[in-house]
Amino acid sequence: MNKSRALCVISGGMDSALAAKMAKNDGYDIVAVHFNYGQRTENRELDSFKKISKDLDAKITHVVDLDFFKQIGVNALTDDSIDVPITGINPGVPITYVPYRNGIFLSIAAALAQKYSAKAIYIGVVEEDSSGYPDCTKGFIDSINSAINLGLNDNDLEIKTPLIHLSKADIVRKSLQYGVKLEHTWSCYKNEESACGLCDSCRLRLKGFKEAGKKDPIAYIA
Amino acid sequence: MNKSRALCVISGGMDSALAAKMAKNDGYDIVAVHFNYGQRTENRELDSFKKISKDLDAKITHVVDLDFFKQIGVNALTDDSIDVPITGINPGVPITYVPYRNGIFLSIAAALAQKYSAKAIYIGVVEEDSSGYPDCTKGFIDSINSAINLGLNDNDLEIKTPLIHLSKADIVRKSLQYGVKLEHTWSCYKNEESACGLCDSCRLRLKGFKEAGKKDPIAYIA
Repeated sequence: MNKSRALCVISGGMDSALAAKMAKNDGYDIVAVHFNYGQRTENRELDSFKKISKDLDAKITHVVDLDFFKQIGVNALTDDSIDVPITGINPGVPITYVPYRNGIFLSIAAALAQKYSAKAIYIGVVEEDSSGYPDCTKGFIDSINSAINLGLNDNDLEIKTPLIHLSKADIVRKSLQYGVKLEHTWSCYKNEESACGLCDSCRLRLKGFKEAGKKDPIAYIA
Repeated sequence: MNKSRALCVISGGMDSALAAKMAKNDGYDIVAVHFNYGQRTENRELDSFKKISKDLDAKITHVVDLDFFKQIGVNALTDDSIDVPITGINPGVPITYVPYRNGIFLSIAAALAQKYSAKAIYIGVVEEDSSGYPDCTKGFIDSINSAINLGLNDNDLEIKTPLIHLSKADIVRKSLQYGVKLEHTWSCYKNEESACGLCDSCRLRLKGFKEAGKKDPIAYIA
């Protein structure tokens, strides 16, 4: 009997690598999907996606180029005129918030799920221990899941968020437990060679490793 | 005092031209947005968009290229291996349904609304007198409107669908009443020079003109 397929949105970071590994453990064949959206670290993230997809033995990989995010701008990841903040995490929605990025990603993923007859979408969003992006909340995911099932030809697509309530330390621990190769993941917002260690994404990642009592295998600027 | 801005999704057809004209009459400054998505009549629709935007005196125009729809395929508008049906409108969702197209368009429109500080999105979806696409229903629009306000940084964006319950005859009548230049619009799914008159979109358009007792100003194949 053929397994059901799950479409996994894989950015190349730890969270999406673990979420996709969980999909595999849940018994799905993996359709690995990645979005190039003109972000600063596009090449490094794509490289991580390829390694993670290989680690997962994904049956199908699909890379989508979204050049228009550069036109949208108004955020530090796709607009080169806005610096990535490196002074620490503050309350509120940070300038690294790319407007409605996950909404756009999930909408395209929904169309691809129809193409590939996938029954579930896995996405590694984290609500509490994160940068505070509004499109990473359980409320948002549930709401867009309803909208997608109304707007699609099929109406039984389920968006799964197995990491939504985990801390970054939980994510590090579970990744090691599930055998995710964290050396293949990339989180830094700024750099593609050695991680900066100072942007919000590096800080969250390093905090997770520290709290889990583990050493991050990727290279940081000394 | 500056007027509020409305972002109008304008395909180049009658419906979106009228919806955008209504936005203008409602007192908004118009941000005219068009999506090239690899559909068969991409060039002709873009040409219509430019004319309609000029007719509206749109303050901002924004064209988004979405090449990935060609990769999604599984529909007759973006997959050249699937013929556009010309034998008449049937019940059910037709093969011209592009998976989650309006969901994807509205998601990108939401991000652009944040960029341009628009308070409303106008879209010319029609529920009853239409091709039966699931992403053209009031239920879907209300649902994605909620999702967008949860996922965006702002939470007061309103998606307006002034045509949702109109018939095609109503749309023809109102377009003439509002002074929409219907000669600048394009509906045919198949052709870019003279409309085929046989695809679902041509049939719906011609039925609207017939029921309204008016003559369609665009050219059809004899």
